[in-house]
Amino acid sequence: MRDFLPEDVRRREHVIGVIKRVYERYGFEPLETPAVENLDTLMGKYGEESNQLIFKILKRGEHEASGQADLALRYDLTVPLARVVAQYQSRLPRLFKRYQIQPVWRADRPARGRFREFYQCDVDALGSTSPVVEAELCAAVAEVLTELGFTDFVIRLNHRQLLTSLLNLAGIAAEKHAEALVAIDKRDKIGPDGVVRELAERGIEERSRTQVMAWLESAAGGDWGSWLGGQASDLDDAGRAAVANLQQIIGLLGDGPTRARLRIDPTLARGLSYYTGAIMEINVPDLAGSLGGGGRYDNLVGLFLGQSVPACGFSLGLERILVVMGERGMFPRGSAAPSADVMTVVFDAADLPHALRLAALLRRSGLRVLVYPDPDKIGKQIKYADSLGIPFAAILGGDEIAAGTVTVKDLAAQTQRTCDQAAAGGAILEELAHRG
Amino acid sequence: MRDFLPEDVRRREHVIGVIKRVYERYGFEPLETPAVENLDTLMGKYGEESNQLIFKILKRGEHEASGQADLALRYDLTVPLARVVAQYQSRLPRLFKRYQIQPVWRADRPARGRFREFYQCDVDALGSTSPVVEAELCAAVAEVLTELGFTDFVIRLNHRQLLTSLLNLAGIAAEKHAEALVAIDKRDKIGPDGVVRELAERGIEERSRTQVMAWLESAAGGDWGSWLGGQASDLDDAGRAAVANLQQIIGLLGDGPTRARLRIDPTLARGLSYYTGAIMEINVPDLAGSLGGGGRYDNLVGLFLGQSVPACGFSLGLERILVVMGERGMFPRGSAAPSADVMTVVFDAADLPHALRLAALLRRSGLRVLVYPDPDKIGKQIKYADSLGIPFAAILGGDEIAAGTVTVKDLAAQTQRTCDQAAAGGAILEELAHRG
Repeated sequence: MRDFLPEDVRRREHVIGVIKRVYERYGFEPLETPAVENLDTLMGKYGEESNQLIFKILKRGEHEASGQADLALRYDLTVPLARVVAQYQSRLPRLFKRYQIQPVWRADRPARGRFREFYQCDVDALGSTSPVVEAELCAAVAEVLTELGFTDFVIRLNHRQLLTSLLNLAGIAAEKHAEALVAIDKRDKIGPDGVVRELAERGIEERSRTQVMAWLESAAGGDWGSWLGGQASDLDDAGRAAVANLQQIIGLLGDGPTRARLRIDPTLARGLSYYTGAIMEINVPDLAGSLGGGGRYDNLVGLFLGQSVPACGFSLGLERILVVMGERGMFPRGSAAPSADVMTVVFDAADLPHALRLAALLRRSGLRVLVYPDPDKIGKQIKYADSLGIPFAAILGGDEIAAGTVTVKDLAAQTQRTCDQAAAGGAILEELAHRG
Repeated sequence: MRDFLPEDVRRREHVIGVIKRVYERYGFEPLETPAVENLDTLMGKYGEESNQLIFKILKRGEHEASGQADLALRYDLTVPLARVVAQYQSRLPRLFKRYQIQPVWRADRPARGRFREFYQCDVDALGSTSPVVEAELCAAVAEVLTELGFTDFVIRLNHRQLLTSLLNLAGIAAEKHAEALVAIDKRDKIGPDGVVRELAERGIEERSRTQVMAWLESAAGGDWGSWLGGQASDLDDAGRAAVANLQQIIGLLGDGPTRARLRIDPTLARGLSYYTGAIMEINVPDLAGSLGGGGRYDNLVGLFLGQSVPACGFSLGLERILVVMGERGMFPRGSAAPSADVMTVVFDAADLPHALRLAALLRRSGLRVLVYPDPDKIGKQIKYADSLGIPFAAILGGDEIAAGTVTVKDLAAQTQRTCDQAAAGGAILEELAHRG
C-alpha cells in the first residue's frame, strides 16, 4: 500500500476529474459506500481463490481475544453496489446509473501497477436488460480514455452465454466449463499451444480440445462479423441469443467513434464468477494486463434482494491508467505545478502581520500564497521559494510597508518592480496567464 | 458506517471542494495515505482509551487461524502524516504544508454526527515553530467556514504549557495533570460545580480545586486579554512563554476577519495526548461537540524519525459540518440537482441508434444526457424523466429522424418545439442558464 505525495495526488485527481466529468455527461450519479462491509456480504461472491484475498477485521472489545473476524475491507465495488441496490431499492430510480471511485483491498502479491490498496473507477447501470446499456457503457469508457489522451486502446467484447454454448458444442460438460474458460482466457499470454496443453491438464478430452481450438483460431483469424454469423447456425438457442445481443450492441454504436474500438474476442472470459451476459475488457499494447473490464451480471443483486435486478457495469483500474500515462508522459503540465504562485518575504518578525494582511489580499484575487513564517535572511527566503518552483516573491521592506506598496520579484527572470499592494494580485495573475 | 447516495455525495463534494480551494490558496498541498497502517505505527500514540477503538486486521494466509492482527485501519490523519514526514523527509520541502481529506475509523459507539467511519479534513504545517503557522491555520479554517456560509463560529484558543503552568501553580502534581484536564475540559457540559465534583473524584485536593476554579472563573468572566496579562506574573517561565505565544498568534492576525473569531478559553484541553503548544477548537451554538480542532505537536514526528520536527495542524470533521449545514438548510440548490439535463425518447427499438447519436451530440455541447434504454410508451418514458426532475425530453419520432430534427419538450412548462439536432444542445443550455 502506498502514500501519495502532492504530485501523485494531483495526477490522480486529474484522471479522476476526467472520469467523473464524462460519466456525469452520460447521466451517471456518484455513490460512495463504506470501506468496511460485513464479512458475510463479501464471502462466496467472487470465487474460492478470492475469498483468501479478503482482508478480515478482528471483532472488537471483549471478543477481540477470540481471534474471530466479523467485518472485512471491500474487495471490489460491485458487490457493495448490489447490497446498496437491495437495501435502498425504494429510494433509487428504476434505472439506477451510478459511478463510484473508491479504493478496494486485496491481499494479493504486489506487481507492476498492482497494489494491495488500489482505486477502482466503476460505472454501472441497473434496471434494464436493453443492449443500450452495454452500448452506452462502452461509449462512456471510450470517451474517458479518449479525453485522457489514449488513441490506441481496444475494447474486447464477448458473451458468457456464447462461451457456454460453444463449450457445449465442443462436448465439454457444464461442470468443466469454468476450468476450460481459465485455459482459454490465457491465450494472449501462453499462445494456442499453451491453451491446448492447459486444456489437457484440466481434463478436457482431445476431441473437445480440437473443436475449441478450431473456433478459437478461426475467430482470431480476422473478420469476426462473418465469424459470428458462421457460428450461429450450430449454436443452441442461448448461444444464438448471445450472438444477436452482441450484434445489437455493435449496431447501436452505428458509425460513431466507439464502434472502431470494439473487437469481438472469443477468448475473453473474465475471471469473476458473477457475469451472465456480455463481457468487456480494455487493452493497450504496452500493458500486459487490462486497463479495465466489465460485463452484465443479472443475478448478483438477487442474492441480496431475493428478486433479480438486471445490471451491467465497467470498472477502470486507476493505478493501471496512471502507470501507462506516466510511462508515456501523458500528464498535462499543471499536474506538476508548484504549491504556490507567490511567497511573501519580510525582513523582520515585527513585519509578519503585514505579510499576513498582504497574503489575504493576494488570496482574494485567487492566487495561492505561501507566507514564509520566519524572518530569515532575504537571500535564504528567496532561495527557498525558488527551490520549490514558486514563480514570484512579494517583498515587504520598511519602505514598502510605509507606502502601502510591495516589491514583486519574478524569480525566473530575476526582475522586480514595486507597485501598490492592491494592484499586485492583478499584475501577478496577468503575468501567470501570459505564461499559460 | 454509512452509504452515501447521490445527493449525499454531491453535498459532501460541495463542502470538500470549498475546503480544498481555500487550503490551496494558503499554499497547502494534497497528501493521501493508505487506509491501512501497521498496527505498531498506531498503537500507543493516542492514549489508552483510544487503543481499544482501533479496528485491527487479521493476518492473512496460513497465519489467519492464529487470530493475530498485524495491520489496522487508520485512527486519524495526524499519526500517518508523522510517519510520512519521517519516511520521505528528503523528498518533502523544509516547510511541508499539506491537507488531507480521507476517512478514518474508530470502533466507537455511534451518535449524532458521530460514525464509525468518518472523514477528517486535516491541514498541517511542519518544519516551523513560528506563530505564523498557528495564525495562518486559524485564518484558513475561518475562511473555509465563512465560504461555507457559517457566520457564528468561534475558534477557542488555549495552550498546553499554560495549562501545565497553571496546574503547577495550583499545587497539582505533574502525574495528576491529565486527570485534572479531563475534568476541566468538561466545563461547558457539566458547569463549574460539576468540574469541582469531578476534580474531587479524580483525587485533586481541595486547596488545588479552589485555585483552579478561581482562575477558570476569572477567565470565563470577560476580558481574557487582561486576564492573560494578569496571570503572567505568577506563572513559571514555560507558562509566561505560552502567554507570549498566544499574544503573538493574536497579534499576527491584526484587525483581519479571523481576529474577531478567536477567544482564549482556559478550559480548553483537547483529548489527544500528543499536543505540546497552542491548541484550538471550533464551535457553533447548535452543536454540542466541536466542528474541528487542532494544535501544535512538536514531538510526534520525532517518535518515527528520532529527530524532532515542529508541527501544527487543524482537523475539521466533515460529518459534523454536514449535519449542521443540513439542519440549517445551508446547501446551495445545485447539490440536489437531477442526474441529467435531458432524456432521449424514441418510439421504436430500431430508432435507438439515432438516440445514441443525438445523445453524443448533446453531450458534446456539455449537457448531461440520459438515453432511455427501452422503447416503452412515450407517456411512460416522459413520466419517468419527470419523476427524476430531468427538465427536458428530446423526442425522436420518424419525422424528426427523417428530417434530422428533434422535438425538445420542456417537462415543467409542458411546451415543446422542434429544431435541428445540431441546434438542440445550444437551445437547452440557453434555457437552463436562464433558470440559473
